[in-house]
Amino acid sequence: MSIVNVNVAGGSYAIHIAPNVLKQVATSIPEDASSIVLISNKTIMPLYGDVVKQSLSVTAKPLHILELPDGEAFKTLETLNTIYTFLLSQRVDRKAVIVALGGGVIGDMCGYAAASYMRGIRFIQVPTTLLAQVDSSVGGKTAVNHPLGKNMIGAFYQPIAVDIDVTVLKTLPAREISAGLAEVIKYGLILDAEFFAWCEENVAKLLALDAETISYAIHRSCELKAYVVGEDEKETGMRAILNLGHTFGHAIETALGYGKWLHGEAVGCGMVQAAELSAQVLGLPRSEVDRIRSLVEAIGCPTVAPNFGTDKWIELMQIDKKAEGGKIKFVLLPKIGEAVVRTVPSEDLGIALSRTVKA
Amino acid sequence: MSIVNVNVAGGSYAIHIAPNVLKQVATSIPEDASSIVLISNKTIMPLYGDVVKQSLSVTAKPLHILELPDGEAFKTLETLNTIYTFLLSQRVDRKAVIVALGGGVIGDMCGYAAASYMRGIRFIQVPTTLLAQVDSSVGGKTAVNHPLGKNMIGAFYQPIAVDIDVTVLKTLPAREISAGLAEVIKYGLILDAEFFAWCEENVAKLLALDAETISYAIHRSCELKAYVVGEDEKETGMRAILNLGHTFGHAIETALGYGKWLHGEAVGCGMVQAAELSAQVLGLPRSEVDRIRSLVEAIGCPTVAPNFGTDKWIELMQIDKKAEGGKIKFVLLPKIGEAVVRTVPSEDLGIALSRTVKA
Ligand SMILES: NC(=O)c1ccc[n+]([C@@H]2O[C@H](COP(=O)([O-])OP(=O)(O)OC[C@H]3O[C@@H](n4cnc5c(N)ncnc54)[C@H](O)[C@@H]3O)[C@@H](O)[C@H]2O)c1
Ligand SMILES: NC(=O)c1ccc[n+]([C@@H]2O[C@H](COP(=O)([O-])OP(=O)(O)OC[C@H]3O[C@@H](n4cnc5c(N)ncnc54)[C@H](O)[C@@H]3O)[C@@H](O)[C@H]2O)c1
Ligand SMILES: [Zn+2]
Ligand SMILES: [Zn+2]
Repeated sequence: MSIVNVNVAGGSYAIHIAPNVLKQVATSIPEDASSIVLISNKTIMPLYGDVVKQSLSVTAKPLHILELPDGEAFKTLETLNTIYTFLLSQRVDRKAVIVALGGGVIGDMCGYAAASYMRGIRFIQVPTTLLAQVDSSVGGKTAVNHPLGKNMIGAFYQPIAVDIDVTVLKTLPAREISAGLAEVIKYGLILDAEFFAWCEENVAKLLALDAETISYAIHRSCELKAYVVGEDEKETGMRAILNLGHTFGHAIETALGYGKWLHGEAVGCGMVQAAELSAQVLGLPRSEVDRIRSLVEAIGCPTVAPNFGTDKWIELMQIDKKAEGGKIKFVLLPKIGEAVVRTVPSEDLGIALSRTVKA
Repeated sequence: MSIVNVNVAGGSYAIHIAPNVLKQVATSIPEDASSIVLISNKTIMPLYGDVVKQSLSVTAKPLHILELPDGEAFKTLETLNTIYTFLLSQRVDRKAVIVALGGGVIGDMCGYAAASYMRGIRFIQVPTTLLAQVDSSVGGKTAVNHPLGKNMIGAFYQPIAVDIDVTVLKTLPAREISAGLAEVIKYGLILDAEFFAWCEENVAKLLALDAETISYAIHRSCELKAYVVGEDEKETGMRAILNLGHTFGHAIETALGYGKWLHGEAVGCGMVQAAELSAQVLGLPRSEVDRIRSLVEAIGCPTVAPNFGTDKWIELMQIDKKAEGGKIKFVLLPKIGEAVVRTVPSEDLGIALSRTVKA
């Protein structure tokens, strides 16, 4: 088992990464927990619910089980209320622990439920998508969507442990793997050129979910994200570099409607766009832009963005919550392994867009 | 102007107490605020909205105004969603500041909206009831109700400033003053015997809202609450003593239906009950129990509780969220000015109940 320790203002906790960690979830339950609430969705519960229940049974603590519908469409205040109603009707108290078994949707929503139920109870993340394993389960961002904006209601709230089982990735659709790998590559691009090169070399093994290779990729991703988050828990400064590709990506997601492209796919494409913009604004060498485009393609993400027209693109990007006071800030790469955040001249943006959208 | 400084893990802030502070609310708005959102209800906005708007206008920042319905019945997830929808439709960003003008209902709900909107934006409390001035605006507890329980959904979240204008109490119904005074007395009982004696001496002036007297009572109450909260921000230990009278009081509120007795009235009566239980369990002298009963009566709160029968009483008190694992913990007084938290033998509870409920 490999372990990443996360130290944040709200406390510190460990991320456990290994095959078959699901069988050991019980070891993450604190002794003083009054009861355990296992929350998952109707896709994941049938696949992995039993092994987790089996593990938790050794604690001999009362176990409450809630199965939610599956999908981003249910990451809402309404589903949150379903969770609250369940917790209250089961008389779940402040010493209970929520175990969130699922992808980012389950993780974000259960994390926020834990943050807000009785003003905060403990929770454990058991992320089952690659995206959740390398991204959403680390950093303490929890949220639900509002009809007027994604992730608009939430809290910064840390789990007490994150248990990552790489074997569960076998049942994940290939597109979800590609989407998760986009975020993996992102860490290399913004912080670690060597890790980016390692990804280039190991792309076939990563796509084949070779246990050792994918475990290392997850480990390094968690480590890099934990480092950034530790420096800047509330996203006031450095944490912004984690948004590489996201300003473009969110625009794509918004315009096409959520779910058309997976988040990671949009981010993959967005990173290619950010690379083109970096070439334009900071002189990132064309050879490096090509490396980025090639790797994004190799992991199976799109590299050509939809063509909404420049005006619409800019409008879409301004809706993004990072556009404070109307000015859009981009994460750019002076070189692979280093990121800066800045506004850009609109001609440069126009050129970068023209080079990355569908002809 | 008198100032109480509150130091908590989430930062520190000042409580400003003075007549006509409403006219100076602008001085609490940080320079980097992108906009201001004034939220109040339809009772308070017509009374004090204009003076606050007037004050805020000197900042020259965009001002968004939201008037909510009045009442505990609206301290719900639905009203919270009304706030979110308003904020999003007005494109309120992360650098905005919410000004919560109202009693505990507005303060708790706006505080929680601020805590959860975009994972947390800044807010200022401008409490307009005595209860909110001495209690709910200090300590960072924010929440809304759920049909299955009061204050079940919320966060620990600190305001950036609290502005207390004692002149607004003039328009408050007399019962609300009595209810607020119950919480004032509470601080004396649990922490400061001298302050309790001062309240006994000054009860007439307090009821008459003499500016200097009420200002001092508010100042000392905030100071004492801030001290407790500073020691124990997340209510894991010491903060529990603030619940003197509340286990009984909540039972009364639950059984009669919220609003029949005001919270402070129920707490006033509950403190008499806690005093009787303290006499029974800890030997608090009868003369002290009488002092407590007399002062609660003098401020205009009930001192005789409804008679639900002992079993029903116990059942009601177990619903209270402090009853972890079924055991009810009570805040008891070994003497006036000192509090302890403990469970009690059921005979003692029965005797204390029999001495305090309606014959
Ligand atoms: N909190 C953060 O920091 C953060 C970061 C990035 C993304 N997110 C959020 O994460 C969400 C996206 O997460 P996601 O990509 O994991 O999507 P998801 O949770 O919807 O999971 C994708 C799909 O895969 C299914 N699934 C999950 N695990 C499976 C498995 N092992 N086998 C088979 N199917 C499985 C799910 O049921 C779902 O249908 C978004 O809501 C996004 O906002 C949060
Ligand atoms: N956060 C905490 O630590 C904490 C502590 C105690 C109570 N509370 C919460 O506070 C709430 C009760 O607060 P409250 O007693 O202030 O009730 P409230 O907010 O409902 O106010 C009482 C009534 O007085 C009106 N009002 C307010 N100011 C007025 C003024 N100056 N002139 C005339 N009318 C005025 C209100 O519109 C309302 O009708 C409850 O929801 C309770 O849960 C929170
Ligand atoms: Zn992302
Ligand atoms: Zn109270």
